[in-house]
Amino acid sequence: MRNLTLLTDLYELTMMQGYFKTGDNRTVVFDAFHRKNPSGSAYAVACGLEQVIDYIKNLRFNEDDIAYLDSLGLFEKDFLDYLANFKFTGDIYAIPEGTVVFPKEPLVKVIAPIMEAQLIETVILNIVNHQSLIATKAARVCFAAQGDGVLEFGLRRAQGPDAGIYGARAAMIAGCVGTSNVLAGQMFDVPVRGTHAHSWIMSFADEYTAFKTYANLYPTACILLVDTYDTLKSGVPNAIRVFTEMRESGIEFTNYGIRLDSGDLAYLSKKARKMLDAAGFTDAVISASSDLDEYLIDSLKTQGATITSWGVGTNLITSKDNPAFGGVYKLTAVMNEDGTFTPKIKLSENSEKITNPGNKTVYRVYDNDGMIKADLIALVGETYSESDSLLLFDPKETWKKTLLQPGEYTLRELLVPVFKKGECVYESPSVMDIRTYCLGELATLWDESKRLINPQTVHVDLSKKLYDMKQELLNNYGAEE
Amino acid sequence: MRNLTLLTDLYELTMMQGYFKTGDNRTVVFDAFHRKNPSGSAYAVACGLEQVIDYIKNLRFNEDDIAYLDSLGLFEKDFLDYLANFKFTGDIYAIPEGTVVFPKEPLVKVIAPIMEAQLIETVILNIVNHQSLIATKAARVCFAAQGDGVLEFGLRRAQGPDAGIYGARAAMIAGCVGTSNVLAGQMFDVPVRGTHAHSWIMSFADEYTAFKTYANLYPTACILLVDTYDTLKSGVPNAIRVFTEMRESGIEFTNYGIRLDSGDLAYLSKKARKMLDAAGFTDAVISASSDLDEYLIDSLKTQGATITSWGVGTNLITSKDNPAFGGVYKLTAVMNEDGTFTPKIKLSENSEKITNPGNKTVYRVYDNDGMIKADLIALVGETYSESDSLLLFDPKETWKKTLLQPGEYTLRELLVPVFKKGECVYESPSVMDIRTYCLGELATLWDESKRLINPQTVHVDLSKKLYDMKQELLNNYGAEE
Repeated sequence: MRNLTLLTDLYELTMMQGYFKTGDNRTVVFDAFHRKNPSGSAYAVACGLEQVIDYIKNLRFNEDDIAYLDSLGLFEKDFLDYLANFKFTGDIYAIPEGTVVFPKEPLVKVIAPIMEAQLIETVILNIVNHQSLIATKAARVCFAAQGDGVLEFGLRRAQGPDAGIYGARAAMIAGCVGTSNVLAGQMFDVPVRGTHAHSWIMSFADEYTAFKTYANLYPTACILLVDTYDTLKSGVPNAIRVFTEMRESGIEFTNYGIRLDSGDLAYLSKKARKMLDAAGFTDAVISASSDLDEYLIDSLKTQGATITSWGVGTNLITSKDNPAFGGVYKLTAVMNEDGTFTPKIKLSENSEKITNPGNKTVYRVYDNDGMIKADLIALVGETYSESDSLLLFDPKETWKKTLLQPGEYTLRELLVPVFKKGECVYESPSVMDIRTYCLGELATLWDESKRLINPQTVHVDLSKKLYDMKQELLNNYGAEE
Repeated sequence: MRNLTLLTDLYELTMMQGYFKTGDNRTVVFDAFHRKNPSGSAYAVACGLEQVIDYIKNLRFNEDDIAYLDSLGLFEKDFLDYLANFKFTGDIYAIPEGTVVFPKEPLVKVIAPIMEAQLIETVILNIVNHQSLIATKAARVCFAAQGDGVLEFGLRRAQGPDAGIYGARAAMIAGCVGTSNVLAGQMFDVPVRGTHAHSWIMSFADEYTAFKTYANLYPTACILLVDTYDTLKSGVPNAIRVFTEMRESGIEFTNYGIRLDSGDLAYLSKKARKMLDAAGFTDAVISASSDLDEYLIDSLKTQGATITSWGVGTNLITSKDNPAFGGVYKLTAVMNEDGTFTPKIKLSENSEKITNPGNKTVYRVYDNDGMIKADLIALVGETYSESDSLLLFDPKETWKKTLLQPGEYTLRELLVPVFKKGECVYESPSVMDIRTYCLGELATLWDESKRLINPQTVHVDLSKKLYDMKQELLNNYGAEE
């Protein structure tokens, strides 16, 4: 396990020393949440919790770390001694990975002494921002593929090794059927896929020989790349020649087909399909991998392209149209000596940036078909019962109200305990199990909220108690001016 | 050192086994190059070589790796035995990190047995693509800042830990003066910076007390964040009150100022400058950090903003407007038994994607002021002498010619040996030394080629011999059809 303890912004440490020196180590509440979904999506997919847990478990300042911090000339000996014995002792709650989430919901909630809660800000954001970004993008791409298999092929364009490794993890969780990344396959026990590159073709005297050699070597996983020279004049005819010879040879020959990696994919796939079908290869797969994203896949589907397997690289692994999730980590409450919480609010001229105060939790409200009706952010300690009616109202346009009668809805609390007094109390499922859970989660969202363009917003309401608390804090602030 | 041996696309391994089984392990040449600079730039900054070297040095399949590959059911025992004893034995040439580079130039050239050259494709691209992307973006941001200090603040929005760590490295190389990333500071011995967040302010009863406490703790590095409540009504007046008290206290008080993190930075900085100056704090720094990028900094400069220190986060660490470098790795030649090379070309309907064949090198042509005049891609073995005249011509519009007379130009070969027969023959400079070199490199580019919008293209010409070879290959292919 890598030591990522120093993977933090310097200001976390200068603030920590500040709290240390002023003797302030009150227990506080921080929420990690996002303000806006990426890529115009109406939802996001929470991801990265397992790596957050690993980070917290391994959080220790070793001798080299202390020596390095000492060398900066910013930190005093008593504080460095404190760091040398540092261990996270707080509580963490989180929404499980693979859950569909919406803006303003705490994806991770930390209740800990302020020095500890401050230190872990940067890595929580780094990991959750990255993996939630890629999981959300992958869910969109898979939605566009309408049930076809989507393969994650982006390692070479990922922003460094971790972006490739954990990007592949997130992509698998949100619905991809495999990745080209062998290390991700090993680390997360997920399917790996891939056949050959243009260089394979170019290294042989001719395309036919390259194809034939490959087919003999891999007769049960034989997807031939047909665009090295000329897709329809050379690539597809040579592939058909090889497929014919393999079929006639009596060797077991399955999972075969072609891959298109350039050109007009709608036109080429339709032509190739006809050529393959005419030669009797109706079960040959046509796959494609050429700067694909959800919009291009959607367009190709609309155009009647005959592609049924999609290799998606750069645009998925970087979430190219929106490469940052934008999650933030904000102080929402300070614990009093009696265990109650004093709420804190961050103001902003931009009202979208005003935070929700207090120690909160999130309920998901389902209709009787098990579909998401709305989410409700409430204060911890508020009790809800499905045998009561539930009033939902929009926190901005409060006249927009819905009253749900008992029997019309079910409730589920999304935040679960992950650490208690510094001990991990949560076991991460396997990546493939998270994937199964995530596909179930996505099934609770209406297609209207999953569509690529102008999707229907899912409402995230505040409880009356939380709403009133927020208004009071805002009004108090206004009164102080 | 992490074992990244399996950090590769599966197809590299299936192709390797293919070459193994067919007994083809001829020495080949692969070039890693980019086709287009990111973000509309006329140049890029090569970066990541040190990490490529570390990867190659540590390339070994351990028992777990072999067991995992065996479990996939794709690989036979003789090939797995070969992998268990794998070691890179080839030659690698590269353009040193921090060098200004242009499209189509081989940034890394691998001359190795095809099985080895194929395996290392993915990681070379992953690392060089990522770091060159961020270095190029950082160079653009620093250019816009016109000599002001630019700080890299993006860790929380980076695409995973490595993107934060190596993104900080690349940003420092291309001109940033510091990073918030403490681990990057430790690993690369680069300056780390940071003071406090909004949470520091919010954890105190009031803003003044928060500021005063911070100033007492860090009187020689005291940049106060003034936008938690109201920048001009509360933040700046409280900062001035604290600065005044600190000045009067007799404590050494230096490197102080304010940070703006929201709102209209042009307006707020001008107002804040007047307020600070009126109070006698003419040397107080005004820094800013609010979704900055090169275009916004340029615009703020044009508007007369009084900011002189720029903290750049998301848009730098993700290269948000263009988050992938797009480098590729293409077979360019196969070595014959007599040591000569048979050139290989990759065709494409898109003529931009046609590769330059052969075993090549790159010369930089300078004018007598030491400024870049053009680059020249030539075949290895061609000899150039500054005492001869040099004919440059555009490889697309060949009638565009320039004849340089002896004394009018100097030449420098950009590719240097990095590995020879598998042994590393190159020592990476320290990051701060690479940074110094990079700033010198950027100084050889005209401002017209560095400007943000519509910059002047720098010509990359082909030698006559390389041009003729390429035409012959293209014509031969046409004749075969």
